[in-house]
Amino acid sequence: MSLNHEVIQRIEQVVGATGLVRDPQLMRGYLTDWRNAYQGQAALVVRPATTEEVAEVVRICHDAQVALVPQGGNTGLCGGSIPDSSGNQVVLSLTRMKRIREIDLANETITVEAGVILQQLQDAASQAGRLFPLSLGAEGSCTVGGNLATNAGGTAVLRYGNMRELTLGLEVVLPDGRVWNGLRGLRKDNTGYDLKHLFIGSEGTLGIITAAVLKLFPATHSTATAWVALPSPQAAVDLIGHVRSLCADRLTGFEMMSRQSLDFVLDHVAGCTDPLEAKHPWYALIELRDTVPDAPLALLLENGMAHAFEQGWVTDAVLASSQAQAAALWALREGISEAQNHEGPSLKHDISVPVSRIPEFIGRTDKALQQDFPGVRIVSYGHMGDGNLHYNISKPVGDADASFKAREHAIMQVIYRMTSIFNGSISAEHGLGQAKPDAAVRFKDPLEIELMRAIKRTLDPTGLMNPGKVFTVGLE
Amino acid sequence: MSLNHEVIQRIEQVVGATGLVRDPQLMRGYLTDWRNAYQGQAALVVRPATTEEVAEVVRICHDAQVALVPQGGNTGLCGGSIPDSSGNQVVLSLTRMKRIREIDLANETITVEAGVILQQLQDAASQAGRLFPLSLGAEGSCTVGGNLATNAGGTAVLRYGNMRELTLGLEVVLPDGRVWNGLRGLRKDNTGYDLKHLFIGSEGTLGIITAAVLKLFPATHSTATAWVALPSPQAAVDLIGHVRSLCADRLTGFEMMSRQSLDFVLDHVAGCTDPLEAKHPWYALIELRDTVPDAPLALLLENGMAHAFEQGWVTDAVLASSQAQAAALWALREGISEAQNHEGPSLKHDISVPVSRIPEFIGRTDKALQQDFPGVRIVSYGHMGDGNLHYNISKPVGDADASFKAREHAIMQVIYRMTSIFNGSISAEHGLGQAKPDAAVRFKDPLEIELMRAIKRTLDPTGLMNPGKVFTVGLE
Repeated sequence: MSLNHEVIQRIEQVVGATGLVRDPQLMRGYLTDWRNAYQGQAALVVRPATTEEVAEVVRICHDAQVALVPQGGNTGLCGGSIPDSSGNQVVLSLTRMKRIREIDLANETITVEAGVILQQLQDAASQAGRLFPLSLGAEGSCTVGGNLATNAGGTAVLRYGNMRELTLGLEVVLPDGRVWNGLRGLRKDNTGYDLKHLFIGSEGTLGIITAAVLKLFPATHSTATAWVALPSPQAAVDLIGHVRSLCADRLTGFEMMSRQSLDFVLDHVAGCTDPLEAKHPWYALIELRDTVPDAPLALLLENGMAHAFEQGWVTDAVLASSQAQAAALWALREGISEAQNHEGPSLKHDISVPVSRIPEFIGRTDKALQQDFPGVRIVSYGHMGDGNLHYNISKPVGDADASFKAREHAIMQVIYRMTSIFNGSISAEHGLGQAKPDAAVRFKDPLEIELMRAIKRTLDPTGLMNPGKVFTVGLE
Repeated sequence: MSLNHEVIQRIEQVVGATGLVRDPQLMRGYLTDWRNAYQGQAALVVRPATTEEVAEVVRICHDAQVALVPQGGNTGLCGGSIPDSSGNQVVLSLTRMKRIREIDLANETITVEAGVILQQLQDAASQAGRLFPLSLGAEGSCTVGGNLATNAGGTAVLRYGNMRELTLGLEVVLPDGRVWNGLRGLRKDNTGYDLKHLFIGSEGTLGIITAAVLKLFPATHSTATAWVALPSPQAAVDLIGHVRSLCADRLTGFEMMSRQSLDFVLDHVAGCTDPLEAKHPWYALIELRDTVPDAPLALLLENGMAHAFEQGWVTDAVLASSQAQAAALWALREGISEAQNHEGPSLKHDISVPVSRIPEFIGRTDKALQQDFPGVRIVSYGHMGDGNLHYNISKPVGDADASFKAREHAIMQVIYRMTSIFNGSISAEHGLGQAKPDAAVRFKDPLEIELMRAIKRTLDPTGLMNPGKVFTVGLE
């Protein structure tokens, strides 16, 4: 249903003039994502400043049967926070809700509102002598609410878990405007169903997360970073097992990437150089951290590498001798996605399989793709310890963009089918948004989709919460 | 509805004669818990051996509208696995489903069936050079299925999390007999609602967990254990914060207990002696572990203690110099619950509050109880790092058992009300079972109960899964 003037007036009474955006120019930033990959229209953008205002706006929209699209920093990769093209939906931006409500050092928790930017949260933790470990490319602009709604991942999941594992409590505005206050800072609570896990990762389809109690961790005071060359993905599996057995939670990062990935970075990212003289088929970036100052991490890593050289898992290695050198190594890993954009159209994936199956997954999928789509360039890299690969495909050298684009869907189906064979996930950390509900229907267990739909209908019977996301349109 | 002969025959066709228990003598063990605190009746005990058999039995019972009570090792503390007194329910024991289906070392996972005993799981992990960290008193007889259904806790939660955090995937037989195969060993999967978190901790009210993929951890090779005397609970809060900042995940145990708790152990548990010469009001048992052999943990602990002595947080301390001495220190902690039974009737609680609020909770609750019930002996101890106190009450010396029992409900209400004031949980790790649904209704947010009921009705519309547990009878 479209918004009539009276409803807009009621909303304005709640959020004030500063809480409403109606100017088409000013609305633009809310109607497309940062990559400009998804565009939508909206009747209105509402920017409430408090939980009470969110609740009131949701209640008004519920009564008027107007659909809501919650939005945070708008940095998602699957269009989850972009409205449809009808122009009837209301974008509910949480970015004005940016209070850090409480830091409880003795409980090792921080309570923040949904609009707090991840980097501000990291900074607040750091200023309190603690660590908030979630770390990802968009951390300078993504918000906690979006991190929760998509159960964000990133490079520290190996050690600290996804956003889900970092969350103790939530405050949620339900689809009818009632507020569930689940802001408990408890490590143990077994008094019935754990409702917070329903809302985390639900991409705004069950309610609007307005605040959360999150875990803090001890700050680390020692670091060691190594760049190692590997003969194969299997060597990476063997190596990570060995390093983890030796170092346990000192292992805070283990990123794998192919030579193709590195080549793109060396070609396109200014100031990047190959840390090793010879070329190698695969690399891993390994990071150890410790809370103890001057912990002998370099020694531990060298001991681990000695065994790995003997076993043939590692063929060359360099240990960062300064923070600057460590940063330069990380820049190689972090530059891949951007570098790939310089090579023409590309297809980006975010799949996961059990860590043990990564070598076979890469081997079989590479082969299938080269058979069906000769010359495609496969940019394999990712969070090895999580079994999470960004298995991206760039067009063959010399091919026309259009001819590659025409084959995109077919390429994606090969990759998803293979993921499915290995009992993996077609979206490890990016969510479904509006990009992948169809693929989810195709590659997930139908019973699981049925259960998800039943829950959706129970919590959001009128289907007004972020319609067309997570579920295929009309099939919530 | 009661079981007619035809239904029993159909069930017997599925599970065979060995899978049926009808002899009243043999049924007895399934109709009461290990403490003999709850007794029920049942039409039948069924012991299926495979997921397919469970599914078939559930389908038959669903068609016949017969209620099912899933049961594991029957070691729960809230009667969650004991049928009601009608004699119409069927106990579905999972104890024949005890296969370890797979160990995937490279993925750091183990896939086990619901009937595997926790200790067997720990042993299997250990034989594979890994650690499965869940550890609790009943580990010799409790089963994985029960651990999952109650989201079990114990002494290692501080470092490794509850059973929920140790679980990657589930296989569940739904109330209509369909099987949800969510046995995925993935660290990252964001393709919709995370259904496993609904079933974990739901105490068999939404379906029957038949198998799980669980996380494994590196085995530890160094340990340091200390017994320290503290002036107050606040000192324990300060101390744990300090130790955690210094040692991070090397800290694997931090148990606090009052002098009253220790006195009971010294009085009633053979072979126990006070590790320190003088008496102190509070104690903590601290354990550090490391994967690195010969890690300098004792030195780390001593350094930490030096600062703690200066600050007045610790007034005396002893560091275990051998494994035997460490075991003797743990025996003091582990003996409390049993020792308390020798002092006549007692009321046992399992509450949690934010760690930072423990001192105030203890101070105010102690005071309120001594005002209203002079002479009651308060046995405070628990998993300090989780904010989880077993705040138990023994009758005043010299009081008649009956007069204490008459006041039990009133005492419990004081403790639960105080827990609620501190935004805590009335059941941190024991679940609700049939013991605490009424208290949950009284002390939880009604909106949360409403959401739980809505989910229950959605997944189990006929209400046949463990009726009368989690929810008050008739109010599912």
